[in-house]
Amino acid sequence: MLERLKLEVYEANMALVKHGLVTFTWGNVSGIDRELGLFVIKPSGVDYDKLSANDMVVVNMNGDVVEGKLKPSTDTPTHLRLYKEFQTIGGVCHTHSTYAVAWAQAGRDIPCFGTTHADTFYGSIPCARALSEAEIKDRYEDNTGKAIIEAFANKSPVYVPGVICKSHGPFTWGKDAAQSVYNAVVLEEVAKMSTLTLQINPSAAPASSALQNKHFLRKHGPNAYYGQGNG
Amino acid sequence: MLERLKLEVYEANMALVKHGLVTFTWGNVSGIDRELGLFVIKPSGVDYDKLSANDMVVVNMNGDVVEGKLKPSTDTPTHLRLYKEFQTIGGVCHTHSTYAVAWAQAGRDIPCFGTTHADTFYGSIPCARALSEAEIKDRYEDNTGKAIIEAFANKSPVYVPGVICKSHGPFTWGKDAAQSVYNAVVLEEVAKMSTLTLQINPSAAPASSALQNKHFLRKHGPNAYYGQGNG
Amino acid sequence: MLERLKLEVYEANMALVKHGLVTFTWGNVSGIDRELGLFVIKPSGVDYDKLSANDMVVVNMNGDVVEGKLKPSTDTPTHLRLYKEFQTIGGVCHTHSTYAVAWAQAGRDIPCFGTTHADTFYGSIPCARALSEAEIKDRYEDNTGKAIIEAFANKSPVYVPGVICKSHGPFTWGKDAAQSVYNAVVLEEVAKMSTLTLQINPSAAPASSALQNKHFLRKHGPNAYYGQGNG
Amino acid sequence: MLERLKLEVYEANMALVKHGLVTFTWGNVSGIDRELGLFVIKPSGVDYDKLSANDMVVVNMNGDVVEGKLKPSTDTPTHLRLYKEFQTIGGVCHTHSTYAVAWAQAGRDIPCFGTTHADTFYGSIPCARALSEAEIKDRYEDNTGKAIIEAFANKSPVYVPGVICKSHGPFTWGKDAAQSVYNAVVLEEVAKMSTLTLQINPSAAPASSALQNKHFLRKHGPNAYYGQGNG
Repeated sequence: MLERLKLEVYEANMALVKHGLVTFTWGNVSGIDRELGLFVIKPSGVDYDKLSANDMVVVNMNGDVVEGKLKPSTDTPTHLRLYKEFQTIGGVCHTHSTYAVAWAQAGRDIPCFGTTHADTFYGSIPCARALSEAEIKDRYEDNTGKAIIEAFANKSPVYVPGVICKSHGPFTWGKDAAQSVYNAVVLEEVAKMSTLTLQINPSAAPASSALQNKHFLRKHGPNAYYGQGNG
Repeated sequence: MLERLKLEVYEANMALVKHGLVTFTWGNVSGIDRELGLFVIKPSGVDYDKLSANDMVVVNMNGDVVEGKLKPSTDTPTHLRLYKEFQTIGGVCHTHSTYAVAWAQAGRDIPCFGTTHADTFYGSIPCARALSEAEIKDRYEDNTGKAIIEAFANKSPVYVPGVICKSHGPFTWGKDAAQSVYNAVVLEEVAKMSTLTLQINPSAAPASSALQNKHFLRKHGPNAYYGQGNG
Repeated sequence: MLERLKLEVYEANMALVKHGLVTFTWGNVSGIDRELGLFVIKPSGVDYDKLSANDMVVVNMNGDVVEGKLKPSTDTPTHLRLYKEFQTIGGVCHTHSTYAVAWAQAGRDIPCFGTTHADTFYGSIPCARALSEAEIKDRYEDNTGKAIIEAFANKSPVYVPGVICKSHGPFTWGKDAAQSVYNAVVLEEVAKMSTLTLQINPSAAPASSALQNKHFLRKHGPNAYYGQGNG
Repeated sequence: MLERLKLEVYEANMALVKHGLVTFTWGNVSGIDRELGLFVIKPSGVDYDKLSANDMVVVNMNGDVVEGKLKPSTDTPTHLRLYKEFQTIGGVCHTHSTYAVAWAQAGRDIPCFGTTHADTFYGSIPCARALSEAEIKDRYEDNTGKAIIEAFANKSPVYVPGVICKSHGPFTWGKDAAQSVYNAVVLEEVAKMSTLTLQINPSAAPASSALQNKHFLRKHGPNAYYGQGNG
C-alpha cells in the first residue's frame, strides 16, 4: 500500500544524506496521505545505505503500525503530533544538523538577519521550550511535539516551516516530504549564517520588516513572482 | 541568437556550483553583449542539474525579454542597473555564499587585511546601505542596484569588482561572466579569512597601503607581472 | 592468526579515513581477543592507502609483538593500559580530529549540551589531566593511559566511551574496533556542536539530567527502544 | 634537464590541490638540486588542471630562468632567498590556505598548544614582520624572504619548518618538495586547531616544554621511534 508515498519518503530521506545533514542514522523524514489518514516514516536506526523504499513503515493516526516489518523511527509520536495539529502540512523532517543543533543547545530563537532566511522563514525561527522532568519521563516524544505546538500558538506553521527544540535539534515540515527536507537544508544554512553574523557584529540587527515581507512574499502567497510559476 | 554568449553564461552559472557557492537555485550569473545592447541571464528558480545553455534568457536594456521560454532571474533589474551604470563591466554574478552573506547581514565593510584580498579587490569591499521601506515596496530589485551604485560614488568598479548588500548578500562583476564568478569565489574566501582574522585578533589592522598597492598592481594595470601575460 | 580480527581492525582504521577524521597517518584503531589475551593494532606511520589487513600487528598483554613485520603504533602502550583497566571494552581508537583536539588543547571537559551528546556519552566527556615532566620522559604512552584511568575513577567507561587528553587529543573505545570508531565520530561532532553552542550563548547550560537520562537509556541498557533491537 | 626533479615538483604542486589548500592558482612549490645549484618551480598563474611536469621552470641561484617556456612564479625571489639562507632545505611551498592566512593577517605567532603541532613544529610558528614601504616598492618578493630569515635569527629552520608572513600568508619548507607540502598541510590544520582552542578557552596555555620535546623528538632526531624507521 501507499507505494508512491513510500518512494517519495524514501527519496526524501536519501536527500538528507545527499545534502550532508546526516551522521550515521540521525535523521528521519515522513510524509502523510491525508485522505487515508496514514503516514509513512523511516524505520528506526537503519543504515541509509541499506535502506529501500520497501523498508518504510506505514503508521495510522493512533500511532499504530499498519504495515512494515521494521519498527518506525523513535520520533514517530512527534511526527504524529505535528500532523494532527498542523492540518496543512504533508511532510515532516528531523535532523541533528550541526548549526541548527547548536542554536537549539544555546536555547535561542534564530533571528531573521537577511533575505536568505526571509525567503523561506517568515520572522525568527522559534526555539521550543525545554520539557519538564514529568514530560520527559512519560510520553517524551509526544510531549516534544506538544512543546512545538505551544511555540506556534501565535505563529503560522506555513509561514514558519520549522522549529528548534531546546537541548535537542530541529524539526521542519512542508507540503510534502521533499519540501520538509528543503526546509531542513535552509534552516541549517541560515543557522550557520546567523552564527557568523553575530560573530562579525555582536549587535547585528534583524532585517527590516519591509525586507522580510518583500522576500517572503516574493516567493510565497498569491503575488509570488520567483521561479517559473509552477511551484 | 547570442549562442556563444549563452554558452559562456551557462558555463559561468555551472562554475558557481562547482565552486560550492550555491545551495539549491540561489545564484545567478549574466553576461552582456555591449554592441547589441543585450544581456543573457539565468532563468529564475530552475535547478542547476536541469539547466542547459538554451534555457538562458536574452534581455534588452529596457529589461524586456527578447528571447527565451523561461522567466529571467528575479534579480534581473539589479543586473540591468549595474550594466547601465558600470559601462566597463561585461558580467555580473549574485550568490548567497555563506561568509559574504554573514558580512552583509552584519552590515560591515570587509576590510583589506592582506594580500589574498588585495590581489583582487583594491581596498575594503563596501556594504551597500539598507533600502528604505518605499524602495523595497516599489522596484525593489532596481533599487538594490541603485544602492550599489551609491556605494561606488567614490570607488572604481574595476578596482573593486564586488559589493555586499545590507541584510542580503554579494554581487560581483568582471570583464565577462566567468570573471564575475572568479570574483565571487575570491569574495567568499576573503570574507571567511576576514572573519577568522578578527576572531584571532579583534584589533587586527588592515594591510599597509603600500602592500595593498603592490599586490593589486602586481596583477592589474599596465605594469602587471603576475601570470603569463595573456590574461 | 586472528585473521578475522585483523580484518575488523583494518576496516575500522579505514572507516576513520572515510569519516574524515584522519590527516596523513594520524590515527590508530585496535581490537582485542579477550580469550586469547591478544590485541591487533595498526602499524606505526604507514599510509592508509598502502595499508592492508595483513599489515596489522598482533600484540600480547605485556606489549610484545607476537606477529607482524611492522612496528605497532607508538600509542600501543596506551591501548594496552586501557584494555587492562577497562575489562569490558573490545576496541580502542585514537585520532587527532580537529574539534576534539581543540577541546583537549583548551583543557576543558566537554559539557553535555544536548541529545546528540546524550545519545552516546552519559554526562560530560572528561579532559584527562596533563602529565608531569617525569611521566612524559619515562613511559610516556603508558602514563597517558594511566591519566585516562584516573579521569574515570568515578565514571563508567561503558557509559562514557571516550576521553580527551590535555594538550593532545581524543581516545574512544567500545565493544569492538568498529564501535570505537563510531564513538570517535560522535565525539568529534559533539565537540563541534559544543564549540558553536558556547559561541552562540556563552552561558549555555547543560541539558537537564532528566533529558540526559532519557536519551542515553533510550539507546542503551535493558529498556532501550531505539533501533531494531538487534544492536 | 632535471626531469626527475620536475616530476617531483609537479607532483608536489598537485598534492597541494588534493589536500584542499589551493583556490585557483594560489600556491606554488619548488625543489632544489643543491649540487647543480638549480631549482625547479611552478610557472606563474597557470591552472592546475592544465599543468604538466614539462611546464616546470628551472631557475639558477641568480634567479635567472635557465629552462622553460613559461614565466616562473612571481614568488620565485622568495624561494631563492630561502634556498640561499637555509642551506639544509630541499623544497619550499607557498599557499594562501585559509587559517594560516588568518593568523598571518592577525599578525600573531601560532602557539604550540598540543602534540599535533609539536609533532612537526618545535615551538611556536613565527609571524614574520611587516615590510616597510621601501621594502615593498623595491624587490618586494626578495624582501619577503629577508623578513623570514630575520624571524629565524634564533630558530632552526629544520626544527620549525614554516612561517607566516604578516598580512600575507604561509611559507613552509622541508628536505624536498613533497615534505614542504606535508608541512603546509600540518600548518593549516594546526592554525585551525589553535583558532578553535582560543575560542573554547581564551586563556589556553601552550603545551608543557616536556611534552613539546617528547613529541618533536619522538618523530625527529637520532632517537626517533615513530613510524617504520625508513623516513
